Amino acid sequence: MAVQAETRDLGLSVLGLGVQYPPHALKSDALDILSKRFYPDSPAMKKVLSINRYTGIDQRSSIGTPDHPLVNNPEPPTIAEIHNLFRSDGIPLAVTAARKALEEAHIDPSQITHVVSTTCTDSANPGYDHYVAKELNLPSSVEKVLLHGIGCSGGLAALRTAANLSLGHTFRGLPARILVIALEVSTIMVRSELDSIAKTQETRIGAALFSDCASAVVLSNNIGSLPSSSPVYSLLGWEHQTIPNTEDDLGFDVDPQGWKVVLSPRVPQLTQSVLRPAYTALMRPFLPSLPDNYQNPPDFDWAMHPGGALILTGAEKVMKITPEHMRASYDTYINHGNSSSATIFSVLDRLRQKDMDAIAPGGKVKDYVVGCAFGPGITVEMCLFKRNLDPRPTSGLETPPETESEASEDSDDRIEVEDEFVAGADKGISRQQQKQKEQDVVPETFIAQEIEGLELD
Amino acid sequence: MAVQAETRDLGLSVLGLGVQYPPHALKSDALDILSKRFYPDSPAMKKVLSINRYTGIDQRSSIGTPDHPLVNNPEPPTIAEIHNLFRSDGIPLAVTAARKALEEAHIDPSQITHVVSTTCTDSANPGYDHYVAKELNLPSSVEKVLLHGIGCSGGLAALRTAANLSLGHTFRGLPARILVIALEVSTIMVRSELDSIAKTQETRIGAALFSDCASAVVLSNNIGSLPSSSPVYSLLGWEHQTIPNTEDDLGFDVDPQGWKVVLSPRVPQLTQSVLRPAYTALMRPFLPSLPDNYQNPPDFDWAMHPGGALILTGAEKVMKITPEHMRASYDTYINHGNSSSATIFSVLDRLRQKDMDAIAPGGKVKDYVVGCAFGPGITVEMCLFKRNLDPRPTSGLETPPETESEASEDSDDRIEVEDEFVAGADKGISRQQQKQKEQDVVPETFIAQEIEGLELD
Repeated sequence: MAVQAETRDLGLSVLGLGVQYPPHALKSDALDILSKRFYPDSPAMKKVLSINRYTGIDQRSSIGTPDHPLVNNPEPPTIAEIHNLFRSDGIPLAVTAARKALEEAHIDPSQITHVVSTTCTDSANPGYDHYVAKELNLPSSVEKVLLHGIGCSGGLAALRTAANLSLGHTFRGLPARILVIALEVSTIMVRSELDSIAKTQETRIGAALFSDCASAVVLSNNIGSLPSSSPVYSLLGWEHQTIPNTEDDLGFDVDPQGWKVVLSPRVPQLTQSVLRPAYTALMRPFLPSLPDNYQNPPDFDWAMHPGGALILTGAEKVMKITPEHMRASYDTYINHGNSSSATIFSVLDRLRQKDMDAIAPGGKVKDYVVGCAFGPGITVEMCLFKRNLDPRPTSGLETPPETESEASEDSDDRIEVEDEFVAGADKGISRQQQKQKEQDVVPETFIAQEIEGLELD
Repeated sequence: MAVQAETRDLGLSVLGLGVQYPPHALKSDALDILSKRFYPDSPAMKKVLSINRYTGIDQRSSIGTPDHPLVNNPEPPTIAEIHNLFRSDGIPLAVTAARKALEEAHIDPSQITHVVSTTCTDSANPGYDHYVAKELNLPSSVEKVLLHGIGCSGGLAALRTAANLSLGHTFRGLPARILVIALEVSTIMVRSELDSIAKTQETRIGAALFSDCASAVVLSNNIGSLPSSSPVYSLLGWEHQTIPNTEDDLGFDVDPQGWKVVLSPRVPQLTQSVLRPAYTALMRPFLPSLPDNYQNPPDFDWAMHPGGALILTGAEKVMKITPEHMRASYDTYINHGNSSSATIFSVLDRLRQKDMDAIAPGGKVKDYVVGCAFGPGITVEMCLFKRNLDPRPTSGLETPPETESEASEDSDDRIEVEDEFVAGADKGISRQQQKQKEQDVVPETFIAQEIEGLELD
């Protein structure tokens, strides 16, 4: 539900935000290595490996390397093995991300009232949230909500659910200090995806895009004593829509070897088509009270879930925004890949970092940020944040970034990084990859054609 | 979180309630048939089949019979096949249950604001809630929350989550009309459980207890126009606790052949131990304002999730209540088995039926009902309802049942059914089974010993 005609401050604050990527970074050759090691050459495999070189991703964060024992057995790991790895290697990432968020929020674990979590790469009873809560020593009465079935939109869906729960406590005059967690361990499913490519000769590109990550935020209502520091973001409103009759276009369905990606060629067009209506519905109650320079999509910064290069370029097209509006999305995508539900908090974390401010559109950081992610359904989750532009209290030396209302032209940094973005902006490809692309023997038209299919939620 | 010191009316009403069991009813011989057909005789198998005859369950509701093709292949069905069956045979049950709840609530699907659902027997993106929402033609902006990782406590956990979301809308002055759905298709995993028994020689009793069911309620806040009919139940408060260090005692973990039951012998003792503290925390804010005859556990009716016979007998012991207090739990268990998360709404539905009133403790129906279920964690979910004792508007001919404050001694019906309960009350076993038990060659002590292990969440 949209916030309808309500524009009062809901009193919802993101007090802290933490991200933890696993230690390994997979370059594009990781897929080549495993393909060569276990599967015969075939047209579909060749095609996927070609696409894999032009995803726009420099490296995908992963809990392991191509030499991880679980991806070097004759058969892909089973869903039970994947679950065990999720517990052993994934949950510690979530605990660390949560601790970072709690620390920044100045919230003690004993104050946490709810845990709203999500994953699409595990299934268990009790769910992984139980183990995170235990490790953090949260109260035994903490209310846990583990969301399932929502794929890459999970992060924002969890934040929306936390927001609604938080307001429930506001109504009752109770403090809400909600730990929101997203954890995905996808890369272990590489063998399952390669297996399917070899057997079905389908052009399956999931293994080229997905990565591992844990991220967390602490969302608070305004009841009870709050830390004196300013919130990272204020959450102003949210919008959730399902595109009718698109459930067969995007999915992630359970299988003895994990979860198999479902992805139709219609996805880029579908996700583009819903952006404007969702934005209009989200912003309707806010536009009358927002300043004149916050009325149109390019007036905002955009924390877009980088599902694939075409999600970002599609958003540029229909919302008339630039890669610089989505600088944190591009940066996260290029340096870590698509970590499904956990990505969006990483994007929001990246967006507030100093070097990102340097490449804001026209050098001006926006006060308001639109968050957006797509998931199976196909659903779109969109929300509006007000960014805190004060210096973080933990780092008194930093100066606030310049905003829309301030004038400046500076930063060599900015120009350098911007160049990196602009070079590959049309397809979200980094300068380094752009150079590689220019030198490659594969004809440009082939790349252009292949990259058309390069899309995930 | 308990409701703390708050006792004001939260304005939360269960407006409608619907249950749909699948068409087949499995007697205890169903397990014998499949065991004999596919597995050699072995000590563990013999033990499980003996226990299976004394679960206290007359029949388990199921989407199929022992001749269902999926349980008659050389290998148990895979989790992908289980998922497909969940979609083809499970989702229609959920749609029917939801329609019944909506019809009773006099709520049009277009008015539904949220769908809060749960299952532990499926994993998919999009989740099954998407398909139910589509079939019911719910608005594309409906907020969906699919809960995972909570096993048998899912029904009440979903209701609690719906309640908190509902209050969020109350705070915003928005109507909340929340469809809460629980769907479980467990019986298809019979071959997987039998397979594990044969291979590991563990005494695994899940296949003897679990059954299939869909159930739904419509929960509403008090904003906007409401149907003139009285609610079925008012939801007054809830309590959620996790018993520390018990996550290895009860679980349902993913496997290539579905989900495997984890169950330790400590479960009966653990679940008993948490009942009194949870009840005390739940009731603390309410007791001062409740009448003198609603102060102690036996003053209430109990909608206890019938996870197994010992859950019910354990509750009798520690809460000093009788089988008649839990008459709907026994009735549901005996006639349908343990349908995991979907059971509790079935119990609440059964409790309000005329023939159940006839066997209320001392012939007096209680105005207040405590709902309770256990899940992996181990968690306990407990809530307090006020029951509507007015005649249902759709059935003007019925007279309201007698309550605590009225006097009566009647009903041959009551006596007959009560006898059925009392005969087997000590172990929750029906009269018919009690007779069979008495005639059986297996010594009583063996049964008593075996039934000690007969416990699920």
